[in-house]
Amino acid sequence: MEETFVPFRGIKNDLKGRLLCYKQDWSGGLRAGIRILAPTTYIFFASAIPVISFGEQLERNTDGTITAVQTLASTALCGVIHSIVGGQPLLILGVAEPTVLMYTFMFDFVKDRKDLGPKLFLAWTGWVCVWTALLLFLLAVLGACSIINRFTRVAGELFGLLIAMLFMQQAIRGVVEEFGIPKRENIKDTAFLPSWRFGNGMFALVLSFGLLLTALRSRKARSWRYGTGWLRGFVADYGVPLMVVVWTAVSYIPVNDVPRGIPRRLFSPNPWSPGAYSNWTVTKDMLNVPLLYIIGAFIPATMIAVLYYFDHSVASQLAQQKEFNLKKPSSYHYDLLLLGFLVILCGLIGIPPSNGVIPQSPMHTKSLATLKHQLLRNKLVSTARDSMRKNVNLSQLYQNMKDAYNEMQTPLVYQTPPTLGLKELKNSTVQRASSSGYMDAPVDEAVFEVDKDIDDLLPVEVKEQRLSNLLQALMVGSCVAAMPLLKKIPTSVLWGYFAFMAIESLPGNQFWERILLLFTAPSRRYKVLEEYHATFVETVPFKTITFFTLFQTFYLLLCFGITWIPIAGLLFPLLIMLLVPVRQYLLPKFFKAVHLQDLDAAEYEEAPAITYNLSFEDQEGRVSNIDSGEVLDEIMTRSRGEIIKHVSSPKVTSSTQSPREQMKSVYSPRISEMAKSPRLSEIITEISPRSPRPSKLGRGSSST
Amino acid sequence: MEETFVPFRGIKNDLKGRLLCYKQDWSGGLRAGIRILAPTTYIFFASAIPVISFGEQLERNTDGTITAVQTLASTALCGVIHSIVGGQPLLILGVAEPTVLMYTFMFDFVKDRKDLGPKLFLAWTGWVCVWTALLLFLLAVLGACSIINRFTRVAGELFGLLIAMLFMQQAIRGVVEEFGIPKRENIKDTAFLPSWRFGNGMFALVLSFGLLLTALRSRKARSWRYGTGWLRGFVADYGVPLMVVVWTAVSYIPVNDVPRGIPRRLFSPNPWSPGAYSNWTVTKDMLNVPLLYIIGAFIPATMIAVLYYFDHSVASQLAQQKEFNLKKPSSYHYDLLLLGFLVILCGLIGIPPSNGVIPQSPMHTKSLATLKHQLLRNKLVSTARDSMRKNVNLSQLYQNMKDAYNEMQTPLVYQTPPTLGLKELKNSTVQRASSSGYMDAPVDEAVFEVDKDIDDLLPVEVKEQRLSNLLQALMVGSCVAAMPLLKKIPTSVLWGYFAFMAIESLPGNQFWERILLLFTAPSRRYKVLEEYHATFVETVPFKTITFFTLFQTFYLLLCFGITWIPIAGLLFPLLIMLLVPVRQYLLPKFFKAVHLQDLDAAEYEEAPAITYNLSFEDQEGRVSNIDSGEVLDEIMTRSRGEIIKHVSSPKVTSSTQSPREQMKSVYSPRISEMAKSPRLSEIITEISPRSPRPSKLGRGSSST
Repeated sequence: MEETFVPFRGIKNDLKGRLLCYKQDWSGGLRAGIRILAPTTYIFFASAIPVISFGEQLERNTDGTITAVQTLASTALCGVIHSIVGGQPLLILGVAEPTVLMYTFMFDFVKDRKDLGPKLFLAWTGWVCVWTALLLFLLAVLGACSIINRFTRVAGELFGLLIAMLFMQQAIRGVVEEFGIPKRENIKDTAFLPSWRFGNGMFALVLSFGLLLTALRSRKARSWRYGTGWLRGFVADYGVPLMVVVWTAVSYIPVNDVPRGIPRRLFSPNPWSPGAYSNWTVTKDMLNVPLLYIIGAFIPATMIAVLYYFDHSVASQLAQQKEFNLKKPSSYHYDLLLLGFLVILCGLIGIPPSNGVIPQSPMHTKSLATLKHQLLRNKLVSTARDSMRKNVNLSQLYQNMKDAYNEMQTPLVYQTPPTLGLKELKNSTVQRASSSGYMDAPVDEAVFEVDKDIDDLLPVEVKEQRLSNLLQALMVGSCVAAMPLLKKIPTSVLWGYFAFMAIESLPGNQFWERILLLFTAPSRRYKVLEEYHATFVETVPFKTITFFTLFQTFYLLLCFGITWIPIAGLLFPLLIMLLVPVRQYLLPKFFKAVHLQDLDAAEYEEAPAITYNLSFEDQEGRVSNIDSGEVLDEIMTRSRGEIIKHVSSPKVTSSTQSPREQMKSVYSPRISEMAKSPRLSEIITEISPRSPRPSKLGRGSSST
Repeated sequence: MEETFVPFRGIKNDLKGRLLCYKQDWSGGLRAGIRILAPTTYIFFASAIPVISFGEQLERNTDGTITAVQTLASTALCGVIHSIVGGQPLLILGVAEPTVLMYTFMFDFVKDRKDLGPKLFLAWTGWVCVWTALLLFLLAVLGACSIINRFTRVAGELFGLLIAMLFMQQAIRGVVEEFGIPKRENIKDTAFLPSWRFGNGMFALVLSFGLLLTALRSRKARSWRYGTGWLRGFVADYGVPLMVVVWTAVSYIPVNDVPRGIPRRLFSPNPWSPGAYSNWTVTKDMLNVPLLYIIGAFIPATMIAVLYYFDHSVASQLAQQKEFNLKKPSSYHYDLLLLGFLVILCGLIGIPPSNGVIPQSPMHTKSLATLKHQLLRNKLVSTARDSMRKNVNLSQLYQNMKDAYNEMQTPLVYQTPPTLGLKELKNSTVQRASSSGYMDAPVDEAVFEVDKDIDDLLPVEVKEQRLSNLLQALMVGSCVAAMPLLKKIPTSVLWGYFAFMAIESLPGNQFWERILLLFTAPSRRYKVLEEYHATFVETVPFKTITFFTLFQTFYLLLCFGITWIPIAGLLFPLLIMLLVPVRQYLLPKFFKAVHLQDLDAAEYEEAPAITYNLSFEDQEGRVSNIDSGEVLDEIMTRSRGEIIKHVSSPKVTSSTQSPREQMKSVYSPRISEMAKSPRLSEIITEISPRSPRPSKLGRGSSST
């Protein structure tokens, strides 16, 4: 994206790009059919559960002024609007932890002022929202999002880890509080006797750890050894919500003598109970706010504007990472403008505003990639099977598959026909067939192993559409109505879910992986390289990695620490934004450009000349033999924009003084060696007595 | 072992064999130094903890007649005697679950008889022990252990799984009981209010699952990625006792308002408290037992004799499995004779007798194999490093290492010099060196990669000695004195430990692996083959595997079910012994000999001619790059006497009708292909600029 600061140009470009595919955004979603429900439910839970507990948190922090009903309403409202008229439909909106922090800071400020007080809190936040929106309009119009490229990995991942820390903090704090007496409750209740509180706390430990461990397990169901493929797929897709249901059911097991209120469950007024509407009519109070405070609202507004500008853009950026191979354009400027409108809307009806959320947004894209993979796979497999039943030869088979593949593609005006993925498929199969003199004979499974060959070569693509986002927002909205049902969920299950979300967001975060690397025994560092394809392990000296990671950790702890300071904690978004200039101007003074490039590639920096050798071989060698979704799980967590570089060996081995250096140089060729081992499908053709034997090296030579 | 029924011949042979190495049994143990403490502590905990809780169980079942003091005393006494004058010092003795069952059955029988009653219970069991001992003498003298070869895998593994089930049953029952009111306690205690019972139960869940999960994790510490090698080794060696300490410490965290008795802790009288000695003088009561009951004692005695004959022999057999490569002879006959004496001794002083225990005995051997591996490795690595520092050439290096290796070997009279392991080492290194024309030059790490090359080629050997057994028995004995300390352990931690023992005993049990196989998706069955090297997956039709496993499961459930029947449950050892004739005469009627051979190799059956292709390549290809103990963990759990057979492909692929068959034929070559990928050490020599480059195929050709 070019850096343009001509007013309105960014917004215009965004609108132009997104309008071109607007119709397809809907038709594509509808065509996915029932399967769209898997990513929808997944994101709905990931979106609704935190929003509900943020509501609980806000309720305690604002003495009941804001409850889960308000946070759910905001998330649903903003979600629906954004999914329909927003730019990037992959972006998920919701009331986020930083917003909760901000509102808590503001309430703490307001509650002791005599001329404001809790009664005018929402009116005052209305003004804050107005100012925030104005600032966001300004930023959007002036093209502030042009500098999105300067939000490098360092900034995004630091923010991601900060969010994970806040989630984990909430989980731990939540479980600890299960042992205490909640603020708002009647202390005389049986459930608050020391004995029952002890039991409640212990039960909370069981439920939260139960949910955490089973949810983490169920996400990996695709690679389980037991159960049918259908069951494994179902558990992987719906396992987490399923576990929430299961552990909620478990929480109802103890009945004998156990008093009501153990375990503690969600506490929120039903939206139809009296008083729940009191804050929907905030506008008429807004003029009662003293002028000084109306002007003073500008101070928190700048912080929130900075926060939203950063958070919204980074969430959008993380949902559109390179390796997702998105086909449709981004829409940073326009989305920021829309966010301004949403903030004003929320402010005027007295609910906390929503913005783009991490980790839900990248989770959304990832789940849609899994969906697209399954759809493509099913289509191609059935096409190939059909063709083979009709005894076509190989070039016909390929033609049929190509047609089917193109049929699945988004027919966009500005786009070249996407045949890259299948071109390779053709090359390899044709190569294999011709080497066996088999070109014109009918194809059978010996030449073209349908399941495996298609799996190996399908590119990562994402089902980009608006339907899943709209549906999940509507489902969040329906939560308001389903409040009586939601109240059956024990709070401890929520804390477990928070911990789950924190842990789920870690893989793929290179900052996190580098922290782990510091604790890794030197002799095992190669495993990091193998698993995450982290180039920097090979190319950057370990001392530099350590220093860089320690700096980043220190900065993270600073950001985390500042959120603990009362009221002044309001300034934490500044600290995060500050990372952008720090990265651009300060870090290059301490680190070599070539190392910085590897640790934190920035497009605005000149990349030093390194010969990349993009070898798809590598991925192939690994993914053969694994289930479809499983393949994607691997690719997604492993390569976050990282492509393994085969550094020419002389360069590295020239510095074999240190054993570590030597070790590093060793693992690079080792991996490529592994990749060259023959693939399963070849072995099948080799030993199957029904088919002539193609040269074993056929495939290898076709791709090197 | 030949089947000889000439009286005393078996005992004589055993004694002759063991006497030859008796001195070395002690000197070898002493030479191991401080490291002997790792297996000792490991087995001490594995032995003491169950014995303590069996004591608890017996105390409840016998109205306090027998307590943990008695079970500990029996285990210590028998352990010390067996480790000093016993035949096979790898065998661990202890009061086992079947003994507890037997004593419970007997107490239930006795307590309602007017002329016997609880008062004469121990006197009567004294008579039972006398009869049992006589029967054991008879069995030992007549050479009944000669038929040990007929205790095939089927019988041993079924018994192993039965023990695991009993352990798991105890773990579950224990945790459930934490929610209830224990029998013996004062119901009016605060800790037994419903609210505190609930809290206690939930806390028990936390503690037991905490111990189970962390203990399972810590056993795998050697393959962790984090921490130094020393730390990982320490955690793997001492992690389980460490976790018992950690979770005991955790159990002391809640202090506020929590009454004494939560969580519940071990309950046992101190051995010096009055009344604890009452049953040590049982002999004088024995003549008060009515004659009818003295004679009637013969009935349970036969059962116990059958049980001990089977249990003792199978425990010994499992501790001496083929793949451990034991150097010293077995001693079934003599050990059974000694067991007879031990039973009489225990009977006369009123404590339950001990016998050889599963899974502790095989655990003992395994931990000694790890010890020996570490000792051998350290010695060879330091020898190699020393030699290289002196710039010796390759044949000198090899000679030095061979000397060091032989020095470590047990100098037994009847044994050929054990050079097999190192011969291969020599072959491969010499091959590599000569192909690079490097034979006479000083060796460096490029030619001989000390750590890896030694790791790869060390054979599995066991540090066979008596010291660890003696020490652990003494430690168990010291538990009697340390009772006040032991009472700090929460019972819930014990239940977690029971579950841990049950789960630890499963890997390597092929019966268990076959049960899992039934639940494995067909497309993933190859993983079982890869992991466990289970030949039968390749050679036996799946339907046969299923049928065989279902039969075995049915038999297991029958054995398990019979233990639930009051008093008649006494007969369960018969059912287990019955498996021997069932295996020998009934099963061959339902299964083909060749399939039976693969599923349950019996030495007395003629093996059909199958060409084995013992390829060490395979193991090498996998284990390179792994830590020393880790290697052993793998070998132990994977190959329980199984060596992968490379079935010639035409034989299998001729039946490619079913996709499953085809699949199977595919994975076999695949594994061997993987094994042929170059090893790391080769790649090192390849790319290191300091050394000439040997032919890449050098190593491959040397071993094929």
